[in-house]
Amino acid sequence: MFFEGSEKKVEVIVNDSISSLRSLGRDFWVEMVEKANAKIISEISNDFCDAYLLSESSLFVWDNRFLMLTCGTTTLIESIIYFIESQNERVIDFFSYQRKNEYKSNLQVTSVEQDLERLREFLPIKAYRLGYLDSHHHYLMHYDKAYKPLEADHTSELLMYHIRGEVAQYLRSENQTVEEIRKHLCLDTLFSGFELDDFTFSPYGYSVNAIKGDKYATIHITPEENSSYVSLETNLNINEEYKFICEKIVSILMPTSWDIVHFDAKKTVIKTNIQSGAHCHLDLSCGYEVIFSHHQDSQHSQLPIVNL
Amino acid sequence: MFFEGSEKKVEVIVNDSISSLRSLGRDFWVEMVEKANAKIISEISNDFCDAYLLSESSLFVWDNRFLMLTCGTTTLIESIIYFIESQNERVIDFFSYQRKNEYKSNLQVTSVEQDLERLREFLPIKAYRLGYLDSHHHYLMHYDKAYKPLEADHTSELLMYHIRGEVAQYLRSENQTVEEIRKHLCLDTLFSGFELDDFTFSPYGYSVNAIKGDKYATIHITPEENSSYVSLETNLNINEEYKFICEKIVSILMPTSWDIVHFDAKKTVIKTNIQSGAHCHLDLSCGYEVIFSHHQDSQHSQLPIVNL
Repeated sequence: MFFEGSEKKVEVIVNDSISSLRSLGRDFWVEMVEKANAKIISEISNDFCDAYLLSESSLFVWDNRFLMLTCGTTTLIESIIYFIESQNERVIDFFSYQRKNEYKSNLQVTSVEQDLERLREFLPIKAYRLGYLDSHHHYLMHYDKAYKPLEADHTSELLMYHIRGEVAQYLRSENQTVEEIRKHLCLDTLFSGFELDDFTFSPYGYSVNAIKGDKYATIHITPEENSSYVSLETNLNINEEYKFICEKIVSILMPTSWDIVHFDAKKTVIKTNIQSGAHCHLDLSCGYEVIFSHHQDSQHSQLPIVNL
Repeated sequence: MFFEGSEKKVEVIVNDSISSLRSLGRDFWVEMVEKANAKIISEISNDFCDAYLLSESSLFVWDNRFLMLTCGTTTLIESIIYFIESQNERVIDFFSYQRKNEYKSNLQVTSVEQDLERLREFLPIKAYRLGYLDSHHHYLMHYDKAYKPLEADHTSELLMYHIRGEVAQYLRSENQTVEEIRKHLCLDTLFSGFELDDFTFSPYGYSVNAIKGDKYATIHITPEENSSYVSLETNLNINEEYKFICEKIVSILMPTSWDIVHFDAKKTVIKTNIQSGAHCHLDLSCGYEVIFSHHQDSQHSQLPIVNL
């Protein structure tokens, strides 16, 4: 059994020429999600944000911003084009599209190159691959347009591969409950005060959206032995004051390797020594700096052998 | 510019029910190579072996054995099926088919799973993936039939990714000569007494077949920046008396990461500590033991950023 946990991600910030993304209405977002071959399965809201849990990952909609993540073999590129065509590219101040390291890129409906070609029909796009092609790498495409993000604007992604240990074992077992999973992941402590919306998939797999004011976090777990993948995505600053979240989740899930991607409003002082692993740093023309780092459990020298 | 240097490899040992593979004649092998969408560009022979240099890698034919390697998007599976259909599976005592870690598996004509399904229409096949799906890994399929290889039967593969330094730079330059490349790679010293047959491709790329008695070595270089790949394949025992070959080539080409695959006649004592990197060991039902190991230059913590 194979499921591609690794997500594609789109993030868009709109300008005043559109009143509010939330006022586009639920039907609009239902349609947009369907373009990717996903479905809304649950939702929560607060004064700032509508958070949709999807059959494949998540969608968060704020008044001037949205973020959509989809995994498996979903076609997020179609959702993006639907958004641009129905709302017009003039409403867009910032746009980024990412494709994370896939286990089996040959099973995807479109390649990164094809997605890039489609996007360039609509917007001037800068595109990068971060990392080696034969190791973890990350594709990043963004609207080549100057933008000035707020100083506190940061999002982080923690992407974990090959989880091990007791909690990994539980996540692969049958008859899990959301309560037990929350407890194992220490969600009540790590995301204290957040409203949670979570779901267990059959035979396994877990997704949770968490919101508190304008802050969000979302975790998606694909626990399948030999191709397990867990992502944590948040706009809490896990690079600084919320560093413990990252450390705790890694210590619970014991991945064999993991990546961290930070998007931050560009600062004059470039951070150094933040990452222990192999890394790279990129200043984008759209006002953000991005840091990609790849980490491996150095204790782990026994490679797996899998029967086909 | 992207070229998939990584090879697919088939190795077959036949029994007495066929007189000699070499006597099948050149036309047979021309046809077989064409099935993979490759071409013979040069050849050398000695009393033991016909060694063909191909437009995509190499073919070696002994009386009771052949080995064919093809890179790029060649369809080696079609050559294999052509061999089985024209010669009958009864002539086969040993069969193995490998697909190495590809940079861009999505560009291949067939997936590993599809190749496996095709093969199983003809032979009972055991198949394995060695290594993590998100890191270097190696697919190995073999005929599930007892076979007793000669004690001195070993083949080794050294697969190098992201070559660096002066020699790498030369290999990427224009107007290279085979003489200069031989000198840079120290071929005359490393393969002293071997007959060499080599070729430089345009704009770059280099292949060499080397034979001496029943021994062979072959090196294929795809030097393209950001997706460089070099393979060395030999039946010299680079695990023991010819260990210096491996060390010398790695020190010349300075790959960021490399894999070593050893195939040896099964011995009662299992080797330990042969590899410094992450590794795995497998005893095959066809009489060989295989060791796969993955190595990384630990000094190399800066990840590349590539414009798309």
